[in-house]
Amino acid sequence: MERTDFGRIVAFTDGVMAVAITLLVLNLEVPNVPGNELNDALVDLIPSLIAYLLAFALVGRFWVIHHRLFETLRAFDSRLMTLNLAFLTLIVLVPFSTALFDKFTDEPLAAAVLGATLGLAALTHWLAVVYTLRRGLVHDHHRSANEPLASPVGLGFTLLFLLSVPVAFLSPTAASLMWAATILLHYPLGRMGARES
Amino acid sequence: MERTDFGRIVAFTDGVMAVAITLLVLNLEVPNVPGNELNDALVDLIPSLIAYLLAFALVGRFWVIHHRLFETLRAFDSRLMTLNLAFLTLIVLVPFSTALFDKFTDEPLAAAVLGATLGLAALTHWLAVVYTLRRGLVHDHHRSANEPLASPVGLGFTLLFLLSVPVAFLSPTAASLMWAATILLHYPLGRMGARES
Amino acid sequence: MERTDFGRIVAFTDGVMAVAITLLVLNLEVPNVPGNELNDALVDLIPSLIAYLLAFALVGRFWVIHHRLFETLRAFDSRLMTLNLAFLTLIVLVPFSTALFDKFTDEPLAAAVLGATLGLAALTHWLAVVYTLRRGLVHDHHRSANEPLASPVGLGFTLLFLLSVPVAFLSPTAASLMWAATILLHYPLGRMGARES
Amino acid sequence: MERTDFGRIVAFTDGVMAVAITLLVLNLEVPNVPGNELNDALVDLIPSLIAYLLAFALVGRFWVIHHRLFETLRAFDSRLMTLNLAFLTLIVLVPFSTALFDKFTDEPLAAAVLGATLGLAALTHWLAVVYTLRRGLVHDHHRSANEPLASPVGLGFTLLFLLSVPVAFLSPTAASLMWAATILLHYPLGRMGARES
Repeated sequence: MERTDFGRIVAFTDGVMAVAITLLVLNLEVPNVPGNELNDALVDLIPSLIAYLLAFALVGRFWVIHHRLFETLRAFDSRLMTLNLAFLTLIVLVPFSTALFDKFTDEPLAAAVLGATLGLAALTHWLAVVYTLRRGLVHDHHRSANEPLASPVGLGFTLLFLLSVPVAFLSPTAASLMWAATILLHYPLGRMGARES
Repeated sequence: MERTDFGRIVAFTDGVMAVAITLLVLNLEVPNVPGNELNDALVDLIPSLIAYLLAFALVGRFWVIHHRLFETLRAFDSRLMTLNLAFLTLIVLVPFSTALFDKFTDEPLAAAVLGATLGLAALTHWLAVVYTLRRGLVHDHHRSANEPLASPVGLGFTLLFLLSVPVAFLSPTAASLMWAATILLHYPLGRMGARES
Repeated sequence: MERTDFGRIVAFTDGVMAVAITLLVLNLEVPNVPGNELNDALVDLIPSLIAYLLAFALVGRFWVIHHRLFETLRAFDSRLMTLNLAFLTLIVLVPFSTALFDKFTDEPLAAAVLGATLGLAALTHWLAVVYTLRRGLVHDHHRSANEPLASPVGLGFTLLFLLSVPVAFLSPTAASLMWAATILLHYPLGRMGARES
Repeated sequence: MERTDFGRIVAFTDGVMAVAITLLVLNLEVPNVPGNELNDALVDLIPSLIAYLLAFALVGRFWVIHHRLFETLRAFDSRLMTLNLAFLTLIVLVPFSTALFDKFTDEPLAAAVLGATLGLAALTHWLAVVYTLRRGLVHDHHRSANEPLASPVGLGFTLLFLLSVPVAFLSPTAASLMWAATILLHYPLGRMGARES
């Protein structure tokens, strides 16, 4: 039951992620105040804007790593399709979890929900990497590149997200700094890769 | 009037299904409570989360079976395009029917509406399978795979969904278990297929 | 400045139309009533459901005719891109105009707004057909198929939509029957074409 | 780390821009008035309709210039992916900034926010043009076409948008005329290009 028509699976995945990332903007509500209070109302919106930017960068990063995995595949099976749908189920929850965290910034539980959403999405993606290597769905010349990702070390980002769940109960701010750190750690690595090419 | 440019038809279909599946998350509303009641409010959201997960899995399953049918086609005609639009009309109703069922979980009528939406979508898809076989739109080497789906036995899932409509009037919970059963029946079959490959 | 990469133009167009057609469902609001009034509330929703089905069929029909035009093109230029964006601007207004008509079903002005939206979209599409023939953007072997569409006779559907604007001021119901007629006239023609193939 | 599979990057970008441009219509709200006040309520909606048309044309223009840049690329790297995500982050903000400006048309701050959103999006795009030329990601036969865009002169539109931010504090109306001017300046140029082909 292997498949070579990645086209539609990838198009559907990209469509879902494109809608999910765009729905993040619905969290930014136009203030309902008189004109002379607009200045203050916009200042009050800054945390929501930061939450939007952070969530956009996180979903964007998930798209990039999903894109990198699927580039290396030579085949597809039903169980990978199920893992992919589970990944999308969690990505589509990100706009909800972000809005929850944005409204209850000081509540440990809200930060824990967002951390868990991100952590489970990362874990599902890691399971997909491991599964595609085990089942031989990866092109041979990409195996050496993907194998480190499937190692326990490759769980790094996933653990950082999952660790943010208990951290959230100590300090929601510390948890959000951990999520931001995954962006800062990821993008310089990307840049280094680009320099070497 | 046969067509070979499936590309756009499939891209439009995938786009509509990607938006519809993502709109399911709008049913999860951020609670409007003080911070110290967030815990209880999130517990109250769990049924909505389960409805979201179930509806996401159901629309995802419809996408998978649609994908499998279209893979086997060698041509397209206007009536299939009409059947496809009718299928999409019903899929786009799923976020509404899910939100209705989530709000009125104990009302037989709400469960019946969701059951009817799912049943009509499954029936439209079954009609498309039958039609493509009758009109010779299926590649010859896929006929043997598709013919069982077009038989009355292939109506199995459709009947399960349609049967959930009268069942809903006896017990909305029983109806929702029937929908969940289609997921559980589907995914193990997919896994078996993958093992054999 | 001709282009052959229709791919992205078509993908963007399909994306916009897929989102617009799916937004139509937002017009169906889950009733905010006690459970024992759900039956009556759902009966009250039937006109909204009919408006949804009609608007879905109309946008679906616009997608089909857009798809047929773009299949026949061998090149693209900036002015066609502008016409295409103008067409999309009007299609994206359809969910708004439909919601307006659904809320003010008996008001001539609301029916006139929806009729004008549909009529201008049809007119823009007709202008695109004429323009692509005049500028030689159509494949030679498709010219004979497209030329009748560019004739004043090809304006038929456009005139029916535009005529619905003054008719709306006499009877909003008559205007909505005219829109429905374009669906009924279109689909049998499509079916006949399929029979001949 | 160069990539040739532009397909997904472009599909994801088109998906995000298609959703963002369609969300603009959510700014047009169906008036909540009795039927006999519909006429006045629709007249009051005209500024919102103009804001919708202007924003649709602006996002459409950004899509066109993005499309033109990506047509000329022969490779892709991580930093360009980051620039592209930053561009999308700003495009997705346009529906919010437009709704803000539409609600607070006379407030300099609201016009400044929309001007800054458009200006930063244009600047990010200009940086992508410069970066792709510097890093040799552009096909050789497209270099001569792209180099003028990367010159300070190519910053023209970007400067017009950024200049609208201080202008907004003198007159929000003047700022909005500057945005409209970019449409009027752009489309005739496109038309001339088409005439020459």
